Amino acid sequence: MYFEAIGQMKKMLGQLDKWLEAAGTYAQTKNFDPNVIVGLRLAPDQFAFARQIQSCCDSAKFAAFRLAGKETPKQEDNEKTLDELRARVRSTIGLLDGFTAQDFAEAATRKVAQPRWEGKWMTGPDYFLEHAQPNFFFHLNHAYAILRHNGVNIGKRDYLGPLSLHNP
Amino acid sequence: MYFEAIGQMKKMLGQLDKWLEAAGTYAQTKNFDPNVIVGLRLAPDQFAFARQIQSCCDSAKFAAFRLAGKETPKQEDNEKTLDELRARVRSTIGLLDGFTAQDFAEAATRKVAQPRWEGKWMTGPDYFLEHAQPNFFFHLNHAYAILRHNGVNIGKRDYLGPLSLHNP
Repeated sequence: MYFEAIGQMKKMLGQLDKWLEAAGTYAQTKNFDPNVIVGLRLAPDQFAFARQIQSCCDSAKFAAFRLAGKETPKQEDNEKTLDELRARVRSTIGLLDGFTAQDFAEAATRKVAQPRWEGKWMTGPDYFLEHAQPNFFFHLNHAYAILRHNGVNIGKRDYLGPLSLHNP
Repeated sequence: MYFEAIGQMKKMLGQLDKWLEAAGTYAQTKNFDPNVIVGLRLAPDQFAFARQIQSCCDSAKFAAFRLAGKETPKQEDNEKTLDELRARVRSTIGLLDGFTAQDFAEAATRKVAQPRWEGKWMTGPDYFLEHAQPNFFFHLNHAYAILRHNGVNIGKRDYLGPLSLHNP
């Protein structure tokens, strides 16, 4: 199930890449600098758009590497343009592509810790359900909401992406 | 895993109830009608706050009942006040409380359909990962974002809620 849940994140990151593309198109149509979008936020004390994307990518990356018991590769959080943010999203998808179902065989019994918890730890399942997944969707949806609030032409279908529907 | 994932939704709905409480307190402090919040939205062509809450609750309710192969109880979507929205959230938590792990024993092999799909169907796992869970988090986070955008005093800890941390 962790492999499938990481697959869900990978799919949603693919959708995020499409929203970023739509944001670039919107800037072109309205004739404003597309990189203005990088600094937008919904509240003055919330993360700006760029950091929502970075945090979304990191939530997925940390979930996969921690649950697989592998060391997480560092990234710089230095993206300043829409194109650099798209590259960040794609590099995260690339990292997630490297996992197999077998990598998560011990996820259910793994202890997960992070520096902020000062020695405390969570079980793999608790970490995923209480922390990684809600955080991933938090930043993903705030990125989406910032774009919608500013008029970018995306909708629910662009959020969900294609569904695996079967004919009757 | 479905039982645990529905448990995650139940926990997040409990957090949502706290945000609604904070919204009421904010209205009192700033001396405006708390039910103004019910009609707020982030974009003119997005759902207003009330419908974000109703859709969030329904995503969780449908996920549980459909994956358990039970008929989903209908609700009216007639909430017009913050208090009525809190009651809706709590009644949804109450419905989810009625499920046991055993109820989801056949979820992985279940076929899920809904009227909008015109006869087409999804497997239980695809429905949950591609549709129910992303929709749940979509509406949950849009409700949160609407409140933050309008100055309600909530933060990331109120979003995540308590974490099951263990001592070293």
